[in-house]
Amino acid sequence: MYRPQIKVVDCTIRDGGLANDSHFTLETVRAVYKAACAAGVDFVELGYRNSKEMFSPAEFGPWRFCDEEQLRRAVDGIESDGTRISIMQDAHKAVPEDILPAEQSVVDMIRVATYVKDVDKAIRLANNATDKGYEATINIMAISHEGSPFLDEALQQMEEETSVQAVYVVDSFGALYSEEVHFLVEKYQTYLKTKEVGGHFHNNQQLAFANTIEAIIRGANYLDGTLYGLGRAAGNCPLELLLGFLKNPKFHIEPVLDVISNEILPLAENIAWGYHIPYMLTGVLDQHPREAMAWMKSGVKDEFVEFYRQLTADPGE
Amino acid sequence: MYRPQIKVVDCTIRDGGLANDSHFTLETVRAVYKAACAAGVDFVELGYRNSKEMFSPAEFGPWRFCDEEQLRRAVDGIESDGTRISIMQDAHKAVPEDILPAEQSVVDMIRVATYVKDVDKAIRLANNATDKGYEATINIMAISHEGSPFLDEALQQMEEETSVQAVYVVDSFGALYSEEVHFLVEKYQTYLKTKEVGGHFHNNQQLAFANTIEAIIRGANYLDGTLYGLGRAAGNCPLELLLGFLKNPKFHIEPVLDVISNEILPLAENIAWGYHIPYMLTGVLDQHPREAMAWMKSGVKDEFVEFYRQLTADPGE
Repeated sequence: MYRPQIKVVDCTIRDGGLANDSHFTLETVRAVYKAACAAGVDFVELGYRNSKEMFSPAEFGPWRFCDEEQLRRAVDGIESDGTRISIMQDAHKAVPEDILPAEQSVVDMIRVATYVKDVDKAIRLANNATDKGYEATINIMAISHEGSPFLDEALQQMEEETSVQAVYVVDSFGALYSEEVHFLVEKYQTYLKTKEVGGHFHNNQQLAFANTIEAIIRGANYLDGTLYGLGRAAGNCPLELLLGFLKNPKFHIEPVLDVISNEILPLAENIAWGYHIPYMLTGVLDQHPREAMAWMKSGVKDEFVEFYRQLTADPGE
Repeated sequence: MYRPQIKVVDCTIRDGGLANDSHFTLETVRAVYKAACAAGVDFVELGYRNSKEMFSPAEFGPWRFCDEEQLRRAVDGIESDGTRISIMQDAHKAVPEDILPAEQSVVDMIRVATYVKDVDKAIRLANNATDKGYEATINIMAISHEGSPFLDEALQQMEEETSVQAVYVVDSFGALYSEEVHFLVEKYQTYLKTKEVGGHFHNNQQLAFANTIEAIIRGANYLDGTLYGLGRAAGNCPLELLLGFLKNPKFHIEPVLDVISNEILPLAENIAWGYHIPYMLTGVLDQHPREAMAWMKSGVKDEFVEFYRQLTADPGE
C-alpha cells in the first residue's frame, strides 16, 4: 500500500508514557526521535503537554509536560529530514495557556485527546493550537463506547468549528473488530468533508495492526504506531509492522529495527506490555483496561477464570 | 458472529508439536482435549499420523505418529459431548496404510497437509481417508507462494476427485494481508462448489486472528486456532480470541482460560513462541521461518538489522 497522503505518527514516548508515568530517560527519547527521523516517519509524538495543576511533576516524568526546553534537549543536533514533532493535550487535563506561539516552539502539531462528552473543551484546545500556528488533530478516545447521536454531533462540530487536519478513531479498549473500524471510518467521512480520518488502535485482541490496515483500506490517512507496540497494557500497533505494510519509498525500516533492539527491548525489564489474557478479556468485553492492569499486579495474574468471572459479574437489573 | 456452519478446530497439540518435536506429556494432551471438549470446540487435532520411516520415533514424540493406542490413552474417560478428534497426515511424509478403517479408530477426521506440487499425493491420502469412513480436509500450505495456475488446477482437482469436507488456505509464512485472504477465499470458492473453505493463519505479523476474521467474513467455515497461539515460531491464531469473536452459544471460554493458565503458560519455559522481530521479518518478506528460528537460537537473536540484511541480501540476477 502506497498512498502519498498517508501520515505516520510514532507515539512511542507519548503513549508508552502511560505505562511508566512518562519517566523515559533523555537518552531513550533522543534515540527514538533520531530513529523516527531516519525511518522517514512523518511525526514523532514526544509526550503530553498536560497541566502541572492536574499532574504532579513530583510523580510524573518530564514527557507528561513536555516543557519547551526539555523538548529542545530531546531534539537538538538531530537531523530531522522532514520528520516533525507532535505533542498531545488531554481535553480535560490541559490548558490553552501552556501552548506558546508556534514560531517560539519546536512543536509542529498538537493533538487533542478527548471523550465525546468533552468535545467543546477539545475544540477550544484545538482552535487554540491552530490559532497559534500549529497543525492540530482531535483524537476521540474510547470510541467503542460511543453509540449515541452525540458522536455524530461532535463530528459535525469538529467539521464546522475547527481547522484540524484530522479526527481520529481511538480504540482505547482494544475492543473493535474490522467491521466496526470500517463502519466508524465511513461515519467519520460522512461528517468530515474537509478533514482526514486518523486511526489509533490498541492490541488487546492482537488487532491493532489489522485494524490500522482496515482503516487505511477505508481511506484513513493519519496512522499511529509505536516501536514494538510499546504502550499501556497490551500496547499499540507496532510501528515496524505498519512500515512493513506501507510501500511508500520514503520509509526505512532499519533504523526502527535498530532502536527496538537497543532501546525498546531493554525497557521490558520495567514495563510489561503486550498480549496477556487479562488485557485480552477486557478487550473482548469492551471494558477499560484498568481492572486488567490491577489484576496483572495482583499476585494471581494467571488466575484467568477468576478474573473473567469478576469482569462478567452480573450487576443486577 | 454466529454462523451455525462454522467448525472450529483446536490444533494446539498438532501444530504446537512442530515447536517441540511432538513431545507433549500425556497429561498435557489429556488436559487440552478435556478443555476443548468442555469449550464446545468442534474438532481437536491431537497430532500427525506421519510415517515412522520418515520420522524417527527415537527423535520425535508420540504425537507425531498418533498410534491408535496412544490416542485412546489421551481421550479415555473424558466426556466429549460432540467434540470430535482429528489427526493430520503430510502428503509427502505419510502413507495410506497407517490409517485403519474408521470404525476401528477413535479418529473422526483426517486432514492432509500439502503443497500444490504434491496435490496428487494429497488426493490419494484424502481419498484413502474418506474411503475408510473418515471425514477429511486438504490443507494447502505455503499458500502465499502460490501464484501460478497450478493452484487453480489443484483446486479444480480437489473439487472433482475428492469428497473432502473442506480445503484450507494455510498461511505457513504468516505473510498474508487481509486483501490477500479475501482474494484467496474467493478463488477457492470459485472452484469448490461442493466443499467448504478453511483458514489456518500464522502470527508473524500479528495477523493470524485478523486474517481468520477476514476469512469468516468471506465465508470460510473451517477455522483453526491454538491455545494462547501455541505453535512454531510466531504461532497461530489464539483459540481464546476466536471463541471470543464467535457468538455461537455452544462455545464456552472458561475451560480455555483454565487450561491456558494451568497447562499452556508453563510450556513457555521450554518453547519460545509468539511475536518476535525475526519472525516478523520473515513474515513481511514472505519467507519460510526457518532462518528466523535459527537466528533466535544464534546467540545474537536481538541483532535485528544484521538479520534483516541477511534476509534481503541480493541473490544476483
